[in-house]
Amino acid sequence: MQEFNLIEKIKKLTESNNTDNLNIGDDCAVIKNISADKDILVTTDILVENIHFSLDYYSFYDIGYKSAQANISDIICKGANPTNAFISLSIPKKINDENILEWYRGFLEACKPYNIEISGGDTTSSKDFFFISVTLIGTIEKNKSILRSNAKNDDNVYVLGFVGESDLGLKKLLSGNYDYNDQSIKTHLRPTLFYDKWQEIINKYKINSSIDISDGLLQDASHIAENSNKTIEIYESSNWYLVNRFFNNNNKKILKSILTGGEDYAVIFTTSDNIPEENNLIKIGKVHEYSSKYIRFIDSNNKEINFDSLGFVHF
Amino acid sequence: MQEFNLIEKIKKLTESNNTDNLNIGDDCAVIKNISADKDILVTTDILVENIHFSLDYYSFYDIGYKSAQANISDIICKGANPTNAFISLSIPKKINDENILEWYRGFLEACKPYNIEISGGDTTSSKDFFFISVTLIGTIEKNKSILRSNAKNDDNVYVLGFVGESDLGLKKLLSGNYDYNDQSIKTHLRPTLFYDKWQEIINKYKINSSIDISDGLLQDASHIAENSNKTIEIYESSNWYLVNRFFNNNNKKILKSILTGGEDYAVIFTTSDNIPEENNLIKIGKVHEYSSKYIRFIDSNNKEINFDSLGFVHF
Repeated sequence: MQEFNLIEKIKKLTESNNTDNLNIGDDCAVIKNISADKDILVTTDILVENIHFSLDYYSFYDIGYKSAQANISDIICKGANPTNAFISLSIPKKINDENILEWYRGFLEACKPYNIEISGGDTTSSKDFFFISVTLIGTIEKNKSILRSNAKNDDNVYVLGFVGESDLGLKKLLSGNYDYNDQSIKTHLRPTLFYDKWQEIINKYKINSSIDISDGLLQDASHIAENSNKTIEIYESSNWYLVNRFFNNNNKKILKSILTGGEDYAVIFTTSDNIPEENNLIKIGKVHEYSSKYIRFIDSNNKEINFDSLGFVHF
Repeated sequence: MQEFNLIEKIKKLTESNNTDNLNIGDDCAVIKNISADKDILVTTDILVENIHFSLDYYSFYDIGYKSAQANISDIICKGANPTNAFISLSIPKKINDENILEWYRGFLEACKPYNIEISGGDTTSSKDFFFISVTLIGTIEKNKSILRSNAKNDDNVYVLGFVGESDLGLKKLLSGNYDYNDQSIKTHLRPTLFYDKWQEIINKYKINSSIDISDGLLQDASHIAENSNKTIEIYESSNWYLVNRFFNNNNKKILKSILTGGEDYAVIFTTSDNIPEENNLIKIGKVHEYSSKYIRFIDSNNKEINFDSLGFVHF
């Protein structure tokens, strides 16, 4: 299966006349035609054993926690409030009831700060592997969603969160030689969302566009650029160490994790305002009129870096 | 996995303070606290290869069609309008892009009468089996949903649709000796919803409760009875042949399919009105004050039948 190709074909086949709603291909749909006072946001994610997670190092609690965080992140990064979760699990024989309840305990723990209600779902058996499908619904005042398609020329690009840590943690887990107290492993298994800080930013500044980092900083920033038809220039600066607690300017392996590692659920956003940088919040770039490519990355020596040299192949 | 046991434990664990919303365990959640003018209905279903369907006899088009019908049925049986679908597919290597597009064509065909928009989803790979998770959203004017919990004493119980045919079709498919032109096989692979007739009924009569038959007539009727705290008496009558085009009063095997076969997506509903019977719409019983069990089945000889004698074990 060539995922991107297939998604393009599906988009073409399912093209709708209702251009008001954000459609398939986005992480989160904004449904505008349902109610008079609210837009409804819907996000859905599948997690498949041995594709997205391994029972070798994830506890069921961790998987539940992360299943929630991945979806909550999609909703809150648009400025909305998550309200109702629908959980579908397909469960092989090797997994017992207590494992599933642990999964739910992890899920509920992640939902607590948002008062998300578990409102339904489906439970079936499965032949071999554990399948998880979560649908999360959220609401926002009409037309207030922060979209990925609204970046403006000269916007500053910020990132909120610790970027690349999840990828570092995954590498350690895959190496087989790890310690559960390692911060990057904790980040991979139970990513943190900086919800309070994000709310403070939304309330204080005018945010034009945003996306959460599920696929990697460069790739997700390029979704903003492409959907807004802009070029985003990202520049490595002396503050970059803030976005990864393990950053070392001379370590290109960690730079690669920062630029291309997914599953941190940090937020990339653009704003015409200037926001003071701090631990886990830094300015990483600028939005420009579109010219020839969506993303440019300028390193600390003021040299444009070819992504391929970082092993990044999606561009 | 003991599904019913586990669901009880999950319900206990996820119990919410928000008793206004219908919760996990129902086929379809009615979310009341989202918008000022509408209730939002959400239903979600998983279909797993070799658990819920086999690629030996289902075409991808059929599976897509049925994935849609199962969810549409949940929404319309509550009197609501389905609006937006979210489709998550986990796809093994043996399935190619064209197979998936066929799945979508089937899904879209079933959605056509309702103008349902495909608004999102997720596409991932899978190790061995094809895994489908569909979430369907619908809307209805506030507090107008027909619930399963509102059956009234002396209500008549009706069924709209051809009951037990899907089960007969499945048996033929499993026997390996079948003809795709056989009506019961058609019903199993591509169930029909009698939407227009159901809308006519809703508009003309006061419907107190309803449910669609996904698990079997007796079991789904018992959900109405249990949720309404009533006893439903179902009686075999001379009109019973109408609900199954293959009905033969002396054939207990077919009676078993009628009473216990699932996936017809016929509607069971209760009303204090009298509705003229016709092809595919018959009166099958009566609602009474609860006494000792939720469902009684009285056969055409006026004898109460023990379900176990029909091989039915859920009671």
